[in-house]
Amino acid sequence: MVTAGIVGGTGYTGVELLRLLAAHPEVKLTTITSRGQAGQRLDAVFPNLRGVLDLRFTDPEDTSLAACDVVFFATPNGTAMQMAPALIERGVRVIDLGADFRIRDLALWSQWYGMEHSCPDLAAEAIYGLPERHREAIRSARLVANPGCYPTAVQLGLLPLVETRAVDLSHVIADAKSGASGAGRQPKQHTLLCEATENFHAYGAGGHRHLPEIRQGLEEAAGQPVGLTFVPHLVPMIRGIHATLYAPLKDPATDLQSLYEARYADEPFVDVLPPGSHPETRSVRGNNLVRIAVHRPTDSDMALVLAVEDNLVKGAAGQAVQNMNLMLGLDETAGLIHTAVLP
Amino acid sequence: MVTAGIVGGTGYTGVELLRLLAAHPEVKLTTITSRGQAGQRLDAVFPNLRGVLDLRFTDPEDTSLAACDVVFFATPNGTAMQMAPALIERGVRVIDLGADFRIRDLALWSQWYGMEHSCPDLAAEAIYGLPERHREAIRSARLVANPGCYPTAVQLGLLPLVETRAVDLSHVIADAKSGASGAGRQPKQHTLLCEATENFHAYGAGGHRHLPEIRQGLEEAAGQPVGLTFVPHLVPMIRGIHATLYAPLKDPATDLQSLYEARYADEPFVDVLPPGSHPETRSVRGNNLVRIAVHRPTDSDMALVLAVEDNLVKGAAGQAVQNMNLMLGLDETAGLIHTAVLP
Amino acid sequence: MVTAGIVGGTGYTGVELLRLLAAHPEVKLTTITSRGQAGQRLDAVFPNLRGVLDLRFTDPEDTSLAACDVVFFATPNGTAMQMAPALIERGVRVIDLGADFRIRDLALWSQWYGMEHSCPDLAAEAIYGLPERHREAIRSARLVANPGCYPTAVQLGLLPLVETRAVDLSHVIADAKSGASGAGRQPKQHTLLCEATENFHAYGAGGHRHLPEIRQGLEEAAGQPVGLTFVPHLVPMIRGIHATLYAPLKDPATDLQSLYEARYADEPFVDVLPPGSHPETRSVRGNNLVRIAVHRPTDSDMALVLAVEDNLVKGAAGQAVQNMNLMLGLDETAGLIHTAVLP
Amino acid sequence: MVTAGIVGGTGYTGVELLRLLAAHPEVKLTTITSRGQAGQRLDAVFPNLRGVLDLRFTDPEDTSLAACDVVFFATPNGTAMQMAPALIERGVRVIDLGADFRIRDLALWSQWYGMEHSCPDLAAEAIYGLPERHREAIRSARLVANPGCYPTAVQLGLLPLVETRAVDLSHVIADAKSGASGAGRQPKQHTLLCEATENFHAYGAGGHRHLPEIRQGLEEAAGQPVGLTFVPHLVPMIRGIHATLYAPLKDPATDLQSLYEARYADEPFVDVLPPGSHPETRSVRGNNLVRIAVHRPTDSDMALVLAVEDNLVKGAAGQAVQNMNLMLGLDETAGLIHTAVLP
Repeated sequence: MVTAGIVGGTGYTGVELLRLLAAHPEVKLTTITSRGQAGQRLDAVFPNLRGVLDLRFTDPEDTSLAACDVVFFATPNGTAMQMAPALIERGVRVIDLGADFRIRDLALWSQWYGMEHSCPDLAAEAIYGLPERHREAIRSARLVANPGCYPTAVQLGLLPLVETRAVDLSHVIADAKSGASGAGRQPKQHTLLCEATENFHAYGAGGHRHLPEIRQGLEEAAGQPVGLTFVPHLVPMIRGIHATLYAPLKDPATDLQSLYEARYADEPFVDVLPPGSHPETRSVRGNNLVRIAVHRPTDSDMALVLAVEDNLVKGAAGQAVQNMNLMLGLDETAGLIHTAVLP
Repeated sequence: MVTAGIVGGTGYTGVELLRLLAAHPEVKLTTITSRGQAGQRLDAVFPNLRGVLDLRFTDPEDTSLAACDVVFFATPNGTAMQMAPALIERGVRVIDLGADFRIRDLALWSQWYGMEHSCPDLAAEAIYGLPERHREAIRSARLVANPGCYPTAVQLGLLPLVETRAVDLSHVIADAKSGASGAGRQPKQHTLLCEATENFHAYGAGGHRHLPEIRQGLEEAAGQPVGLTFVPHLVPMIRGIHATLYAPLKDPATDLQSLYEARYADEPFVDVLPPGSHPETRSVRGNNLVRIAVHRPTDSDMALVLAVEDNLVKGAAGQAVQNMNLMLGLDETAGLIHTAVLP
Repeated sequence: MVTAGIVGGTGYTGVELLRLLAAHPEVKLTTITSRGQAGQRLDAVFPNLRGVLDLRFTDPEDTSLAACDVVFFATPNGTAMQMAPALIERGVRVIDLGADFRIRDLALWSQWYGMEHSCPDLAAEAIYGLPERHREAIRSARLVANPGCYPTAVQLGLLPLVETRAVDLSHVIADAKSGASGAGRQPKQHTLLCEATENFHAYGAGGHRHLPEIRQGLEEAAGQPVGLTFVPHLVPMIRGIHATLYAPLKDPATDLQSLYEARYADEPFVDVLPPGSHPETRSVRGNNLVRIAVHRPTDSDMALVLAVEDNLVKGAAGQAVQNMNLMLGLDETAGLIHTAVLP
Repeated sequence: MVTAGIVGGTGYTGVELLRLLAAHPEVKLTTITSRGQAGQRLDAVFPNLRGVLDLRFTDPEDTSLAACDVVFFATPNGTAMQMAPALIERGVRVIDLGADFRIRDLALWSQWYGMEHSCPDLAAEAIYGLPERHREAIRSARLVANPGCYPTAVQLGLLPLVETRAVDLSHVIADAKSGASGAGRQPKQHTLLCEATENFHAYGAGGHRHLPEIRQGLEEAAGQPVGLTFVPHLVPMIRGIHATLYAPLKDPATDLQSLYEARYADEPFVDVLPPGSHPETRSVRGNNLVRIAVHRPTDSDMALVLAVEDNLVKGAAGQAVQNMNLMLGLDETAGLIHTAVLP
């Protein structure tokens, strides 16, 4: 058994990590901290954990974190970069579910996140935790930057096209839709049920933090610049991301189905659907899969890719557990095989 | 007062027509037919009409239809083309909310709708009822083909770009999202609450009936072929369409805001929002507006247009009433000014 | 035309008042105040009002309130009692949509609302604005206490039984369910979409502020004490209250249908449904009706009453407009006839 | 490993059984039949099962059913009583998730279910599968009648009061609310998303099939007649039942909390919450728990019980697996420990 700790577990990625780690056969969760809820029982905050985890939140200064094999940060941006160095120095593996270590270009990072980076050395060392791109590096990493929710779906949806440069990389479009849990558990007006249900709209059309992260990943995969238009939308539901991806094919005769099946043949968490499919977000609710379908619309040279994931699982907590499994030498799929609850 | 009849009023466009006509200051609804519900009170089928309309459904052969000034068809495709000729011959103005008269190329129509057209003459005469394009022709039309829900939002969203050929017309993308009422009131498994709520997916990615209708409209406006990729998605809500539209600008310096404001300056039912806006479907729930915002995403030559409408109003029944107002010489906005119910 | 002002219009009862007054044929809305949003355009806060009301929020100290014929308070509890006296002294009619003047027993009021009452004289003078009970008194009132949302549905549902003492008044049960808009527009965790949708639970089972208000109304109608158990529940939807009401009949042969039809025969906003009906909350969405059905369950002496209303209309803003109409000598139904938007 | 078969697995209880059995450590699912879907892959019908179960539906006449240790019927009422006798004769244990064997009084059964019973002998032998009442009899049963969804929540909520006769048994009220999955997966108009979402209403107020089942269970527990009023309501969500239960206490000083904690101290799937709690349906989504809270409303002699369950798990498939575990001598909780997915 390995021991795990969580810093900042009162948000939606926190409770999802708790659900996944509680059922993980090789992990013992020893510590979970929260500045605001220190002293409270977990099940007073999350009623689904009653009878599941008999723990209380502790103060972020809790020294037992340093005794863990691995510590997850499910904190607001800017926290992990303050606390991670001391833990790493003491030999703890760190996985940051926030954005502190996702962007290599720290000037760009500062521009989007509005603060100076406090530990450039670690930022340079951190491995971007998308196993389908960086599996080997993750295995030996001390610090993993867990990808954002949109970036996971968009990159996995586009990688086979981008890696092979099969499309015009100057006109790639990612029209992405997310359930409201992506906006977090902090009370905000626009995610009240009365504002968000029976409603649909785009947001961040002028620019969104996930754009530089996605572009960094795609450009690294392509080995050249990528012109990407990324438009996120808010869907009146709790969980799920659907990315609808468009790029003009260089050769309209490209066999997209074969390209995708070959690329992801050995990936345990990427499921390429049969031709003609339309993946549904509910088919991955609560599990770590990305399901992808590829289409060639009639009379068009467009490649059309449809990709779905659970934003809190493969888009956050599940991918973090997948990274932990790799870092600690466990079976990559341990604790991550769940059947989506349907209906 | 003018007299109106409805053929086939038990679906969602039917009940919406009933709501709008019941409150129209210049219209008296005299007849509504339904093969299945003949004899039933309207308020036994639609509980919101109790106390509003004291009428019963009658048989489709009801001869009082021929005494109406205008008859609306809210019927399955293929019905209006059977019944419209006799009514028109007797001087009744006809508005078909179905697809029978939307496509000029009847071979193309047959290919998508799976039947032969029974009255090619009327099909050639019919006016496509998008007032923002064909207002004058509608005024004198005997037969109006009311546009589809997606085609209304997509065309109004793209017209300023297409009419001016400001974009690369070979790579236009319409990523469209619709509430479930677009799928109708017939019981189907995929629109059960338990299947459709907390879920999001694309459909018809291989081809959808609204594609040829949209392309016809855009090509007529452009005077040249248009390469359009159209992907519809099902949103877990009742009403609303959001079209997210992309096209590469020929000149990235184009002032989109001015272009759209000028084009729609005199349109009573097209609202161009201030720069930086994200229109919400709920802001047009129950009313006849299309609200549009235009964006130029960072570091990109893409024009991005966001357009919302209520699929049952501007996308169906409201636009039909707007067409009726034009055909009968009434104020174009009569009976169509409603404040959206929010929240 | 009469002139109206609103104090505190940024919540859900505020926006509903705005929608109703904007369409009222006899009212000109001149002033709307908001401490937090002073200076902002209404349509920047409520996108449905764009093109409907060309107004800005002003400061609560706005002196133009005193020039209005009527002022509505859509404020947190405790505000109206501070500001109403000065307005009433200047001849303004006041309607408080909050709770400041609902409870006659000010000690009881203080116990439930946690503050001292600042104007006991006005509290004694205020008329409880349930027109179906106090129509004549409302006509001449200077100050009307608009009833709470639950109290309106529960009282109208029970009045025929209570006024006639047809039931055992010591064991009356009101099992009530409300959409989330009843909890207001202030961001709170429990009404986030991700917490409230796909979920159902009771709240306030140990005691809720509407209990003393309901009991006061029922006891006044009965002329004797009433033993009432009131349990509210949160329904995953925006609008609507459903009250399921139970009381043992003294005489099981009582003809409930006739009793209710007779009691409400002349009421414009109470609709007694045919025998065997189950009223749906959507059938009153956006309108001012209470729809009621009465049942006698098999093998039982229970009277069962099902009553629905829109909590923001008959349960708040619509009833306030109905009271205004009465106070100002207008047609009681002016501006209040709307067909529910369905679906 | 034991082998299991399912007859009729294309509904919501069917897919839930499939999810639970696929993850059960001691069970191998060998056969699943469906008249309508014979030959189809499971994952073509249920997208969540892709990669989970590599099976096809077979014809109901599939002889491999008779080789199973246990067969579940997830069929319309009237099917199990036709097929069960032959299987039981061959030594197969049978669990019927339908209603064929739930009611002892077959005349009463015929009255509510509208058909003659075809095997009275088995009906007399069948054990009512509520483990909290009949655990020992279930262990040795050949045929178990799995309780209905409402009856499970209502009985478990009332048993401590009824078994001890602590309340006036002539005036028991069960106000129950269910998500739409209780209405099944057959397309019906009233459970379309556009009809059922943003709506709330009661149904079956004149009488519901679950009433005689609940009363039978309560009367057997009380040893005397029980006067029960049962009113079900449809909640705009997928899963979950909330039962709000009322009964006048004989002795208002009864310690409800202790009574319930003592009664359910050893029950693995009944969770009595701390005093003052309001159980939420989402806290049991996808798991087999019933969570219960008890209240004594202010100034009242009423006992108030709030009970929640997942109608498809403890109200159907989960309880069936619990019964299977008992019948086959497995750990009662095997395969049934799941953390609810929240949010």
